[in-house]
Amino acid sequence: MTDTRILDIQTRGQHQPGMAAKAGQVLLVGAGPGDPELLTIKALRALESADVILHDRLIADEILALAPASARLIPVGKEGFGPSVPQEATNGLMIDHARRGARVVRLKSGDPGIYGRLEDEVSALESAGVSYAVVPGVTAASAAAASLGQGLTQRGRNAALRILTGHDMKGFAEQDWRGLAAPGSVAAIYMGKRSARFIQGRLMMHGAAPDTPVTVVENASRPDQATRAATLAALPAAVDGMKGPAVLLYGVAPRAAQHTLNQLQEAQS
Amino acid sequence: MTDTRILDIQTRGQHQPGMAAKAGQVLLVGAGPGDPELLTIKALRALESADVILHDRLIADEILALAPASARLIPVGKEGFGPSVPQEATNGLMIDHARRGARVVRLKSGDPGIYGRLEDEVSALESAGVSYAVVPGVTAASAAAASLGQGLTQRGRNAALRILTGHDMKGFAEQDWRGLAAPGSVAAIYMGKRSARFIQGRLMMHGAAPDTPVTVVENASRPDQATRAATLAALPAAVDGMKGPAVLLYGVAPRAAQHTLNQLQEAQS
Repeated sequence: MTDTRILDIQTRGQHQPGMAAKAGQVLLVGAGPGDPELLTIKALRALESADVILHDRLIADEILALAPASARLIPVGKEGFGPSVPQEATNGLMIDHARRGARVVRLKSGDPGIYGRLEDEVSALESAGVSYAVVPGVTAASAAAASLGQGLTQRGRNAALRILTGHDMKGFAEQDWRGLAAPGSVAAIYMGKRSARFIQGRLMMHGAAPDTPVTVVENASRPDQATRAATLAALPAAVDGMKGPAVLLYGVAPRAAQHTLNQLQEAQS
Repeated sequence: MTDTRILDIQTRGQHQPGMAAKAGQVLLVGAGPGDPELLTIKALRALESADVILHDRLIADEILALAPASARLIPVGKEGFGPSVPQEATNGLMIDHARRGARVVRLKSGDPGIYGRLEDEVSALESAGVSYAVVPGVTAASAAAASLGQGLTQRGRNAALRILTGHDMKGFAEQDWRGLAAPGSVAAIYMGKRSARFIQGRLMMHGAAPDTPVTVVENASRPDQATRAATLAALPAAVDGMKGPAVLLYGVAPRAAQHTLNQLQEAQS
């Protein structure tokens, strides 16, 4: 028989983001896309009252500088080119520090629920009986689109948005490529630089127009943000040489691209 | 010939969120899901320095209270049961106040780029020659998932996330229902209460399991947040009687639902 029960869940203490991490508790906090001003107030207060901050390597120094001098900063995670901390070690650090009574903040880029590997860490905390709360953040796609003056959804263009990752090719193989290739589709593709050519090939194989706009936003919201307005045909070239984290906005063009292009052409003539 | 040019776009002043709205400029600002602490620091500063705030009716009083006493608050938008302000009137208000030199904040629920009708307002501002910037926010799906201790993506479950709206049935008719019905699919459905039965029907017609988890989160992140852990089979009943804005998290169950369910059953025995 199908379970048709509906469960009204009371807001539970361990999932309710508080003003600050309490002793023996871990806050898994979204740091947003990079601009320190795109931290939420809740994230800022969590940082300000933290004893230990286990942070993704991608977190900007300007954000880490908001922590009190007394806080211990520990880089973790697998991003970047430095030595990586295995997930088990990160889990162990969270649990050990929380058990010693520290106010632990696990600071993650963007929103912890979007490609933040939340599951691994929350499961470990639950198994260890450590209380936790998750503080959502601004995800990179939102910041990237905002910088273009564009929405991720738009009446008459796309009522649905897909958020995809180029990181896991197996996942990509299962995509609805035909739907993505249809006119007006919009997708925000995280970690898509290395798979740009694969993505291009699959989409064009399924009938996507070569002149479908694709805007690549590197280091969204940071002072070194770079924006490249390209087409699907030019996507591999557009990501070439980009070193920072990038979001590919498939189906989205910057509002003023044509205007800027004209200016560039005038300047060259 | 296909246009394969790639355009490097310099960060343009009118799209670059500043610390505060300057005279004659409009900031389109995401207020986040409801909890005032989920405002970004940038949004808070924009509010604190605003002369005129044109706000969605759904914005919580606690957030509006952050505006200075001197700021003029004007409810706009189509949400809610009160009289609605046509889009043209909202556009006109933004432009008029900006031209008079006011620091105008157009405050929108969640992230302005996700179902925020950004296009209409930005186009009007561009046509009128009024400078603007977009400040991204935390979208409701991120807050809803965080409150469950769940990610919107998860290794081994879903590498892709869909964001959908139940508001536009025409848009829904074009969905990739087969893909959504596949095991492990996850979608965050905004404004989906009224279409809950339609969504259920389409998904089950395309083979979705009746016991696929669907969690309905009403008033995400607000003190009156209500969370109902249901299944696809029970979805229409789960949204019954809900009056506040709700996000349907299809394919996502609260982490501790079974635990809480057991507690409820023990309490009843």
